[in-house]
Amino acid sequence: MQTLARRAMRLPGPLHPDSADAISLDSGYAFPEIFPDLTRAAARALTVFRSESLQYGSPYGLRPMREWIAQYMRDDGAAVTAENVIVVNGAKHGLELICRLLVDDGDAVVVTGPTYFTAIPILRSFGLTFIEVPQDEEGLDVVMLAKRLAQRERDRLPAPKFIYDVPDFHNPSGITMSLRRRQALLALATSRSIPIVEDSPYRRLRFEGSSEPSLKSLDRSGIVFALGTFSKLIAPGLRIGWICAEADSIVRIAQLKSDGGTAPMTQRIIVEFFADGGLEPQIARARAAYGEHRDRMIEAVRRDLPSAVFTPPHGGYYLWLRFPDGIDTGVLAERAFEAGVSPIAGNAFFAADDPSSARAQGIPSHYMRLAYSNATPDRIDRGVKLLADTLRSME
Amino acid sequence: MQTLARRAMRLPGPLHPDSADAISLDSGYAFPEIFPDLTRAAARALTVFRSESLQYGSPYGLRPMREWIAQYMRDDGAAVTAENVIVVNGAKHGLELICRLLVDDGDAVVVTGPTYFTAIPILRSFGLTFIEVPQDEEGLDVVMLAKRLAQRERDRLPAPKFIYDVPDFHNPSGITMSLRRRQALLALATSRSIPIVEDSPYRRLRFEGSSEPSLKSLDRSGIVFALGTFSKLIAPGLRIGWICAEADSIVRIAQLKSDGGTAPMTQRIIVEFFADGGLEPQIARARAAYGEHRDRMIEAVRRDLPSAVFTPPHGGYYLWLRFPDGIDTGVLAERAFEAGVSPIAGNAFFAADDPSSARAQGIPSHYMRLAYSNATPDRIDRGVKLLADTLRSME
Repeated sequence: MQTLARRAMRLPGPLHPDSADAISLDSGYAFPEIFPDLTRAAARALTVFRSESLQYGSPYGLRPMREWIAQYMRDDGAAVTAENVIVVNGAKHGLELICRLLVDDGDAVVVTGPTYFTAIPILRSFGLTFIEVPQDEEGLDVVMLAKRLAQRERDRLPAPKFIYDVPDFHNPSGITMSLRRRQALLALATSRSIPIVEDSPYRRLRFEGSSEPSLKSLDRSGIVFALGTFSKLIAPGLRIGWICAEADSIVRIAQLKSDGGTAPMTQRIIVEFFADGGLEPQIARARAAYGEHRDRMIEAVRRDLPSAVFTPPHGGYYLWLRFPDGIDTGVLAERAFEAGVSPIAGNAFFAADDPSSARAQGIPSHYMRLAYSNATPDRIDRGVKLLADTLRSME
Repeated sequence: MQTLARRAMRLPGPLHPDSADAISLDSGYAFPEIFPDLTRAAARALTVFRSESLQYGSPYGLRPMREWIAQYMRDDGAAVTAENVIVVNGAKHGLELICRLLVDDGDAVVVTGPTYFTAIPILRSFGLTFIEVPQDEEGLDVVMLAKRLAQRERDRLPAPKFIYDVPDFHNPSGITMSLRRRQALLALATSRSIPIVEDSPYRRLRFEGSSEPSLKSLDRSGIVFALGTFSKLIAPGLRIGWICAEADSIVRIAQLKSDGGTAPMTQRIIVEFFADGGLEPQIARARAAYGEHRDRMIEAVRRDLPSAVFTPPHGGYYLWLRFPDGIDTGVLAERAFEAGVSPIAGNAFFAADDPSSARAQGIPSHYMRLAYSNATPDRIDRGVKLLADTLRSME
């Protein structure tokens, strides 16, 4: 079980929400113009359901919330019930609880390189070490992972405690794992009894094409912990997410929650919003807006930053740019910020990016993540232009 | 800094909210009839402030929320500003963050015996050991604490990492620490540089008499971490609390928050509710209701359980009963629950109540906590009567 680290997490998190001053291409902040109207749902939560909404709630979450999440997961192919669901204070809280359940100080976990940068300090705060596996166009390189695991076995090193991945519109790379890769990952993880943490906040934000089955839906042996969130389905300010896993794990996670239960008021607002049919129109609005933002950013990057290589993502929030060797995106990001736009240098997304690590030298310095979620299309254009101007000034 | 324990916390938390089936005298659930109307505040949070309420927020909390809390603390005598405040997901989350900031596995902390039972598994989950100090009518026995600390020094044991106490309407004992005892505790803690965690959720729920100065207001050296919550000022279902401490500690605590910020929507609802002048009328309602509940319970206990000894509390939620030696309140509570009323046996409130501990034998088995917060006065009457019937059937 869990230990927590001896150092503070320095979350690199969203720092510069879009404002009149700087064009925010760094954060995964939502586009405020598509925030839904929750007033009716809130009014019901605070009148009809007042005595439930304002009272302490179960650590598992409200029953109708758990039922809704289970149905949502079933509609996505997972064979689960409400007993497989616990409501948490956002997916990051979910990841922390999974760590508390599964890991001890000094354990190893598998992450992709690059990986979701906010996960890194959370994992590190539990004293974890990282097994970093590359991705290709089909997602996490399972052949490489198998080799790394076999090597660890030969070296008499313990198996990692879990595999963390973002299989849909990966953050930051934008890659969606192919079906055969998902099957290979599950087969490997199952054969070695290594849990998989499937963090898939962007799954419904697909602009074109069709979804691959979720890892959870392909899971026959109960090794997948699926993390969910309402941050992308409704709005991040709610701070509600979930874990979907085997029922006995859910019971143990509930025992690890020391928060007095996730806010029942907010859960009820969500339940009522969905009861009003709020989900699908909201997802349609989000898809339309983010799809447009993506198109504008791709156009702008192709026009103004022709040396940057990227794979156009079919969903999600981000473009992952590879600049020519020799471009130090750390310097570029810093100067761009001074010029009025805030991208994120790619090295924040590599778990081994630790000054004390021998691997630190090996981290590629020519990647950059641009978020198209928060800024308006016009500001996306201007932001990319500013970034291009900054790059030119460095040549 | 922090470590987290190797065992699941088994929170004994509120289990039986008042229902048609069982009379809940165990939980610290609020009285639902006094829940305020938050619909106007919520409507403003979700319209005027929509783009802030539904976006990610700062880990420190909304600026106006921090300002409000700082003013509230200043009105209560503490010399603090918003920089001394961080908003958290309830006071339990605050205690957890303080542990992550201050403690390492195997450290000791000071608690009263008895102490707030939900704090025990949280503290234990960090691998802490307990220095249990008794209380008298003036609160924590500071002379005894000084002796214990001196003995540890002679034994070359490290000083405890903090002192945890509930100085106002102590949970469960109901005792409010006297001014001179507060001064003595602060003098001792300051001389030994031991932080104090002042957990005071019930402070404004005083039915008669006047408050003693808070430990935070008497603190001249910045060693007090004050925990606050809106659970008793408004309603527990909001799950919002705060820590008030030195500004540099607040910065470090913010780095330890992995939750993506405490829900801005809920913070804004609170800010708007207070802007409407909601606080004082709500506190007046709560005082009136809980004062009446206390009176009814005291009357009922004196009438139906004359062998139970207690100090009438001047505020808060609980009566702490001492039954005659030989009464095993564990058995009594179990049988009472079968009869339709749910008290809590007192041994849950002693930190050393651990089967593996040598001290386990020393824990008094004849205490019981009754909460008068959640049940209606009539149900309080019936609950105490059922408890008395159960006790008689054991004789």
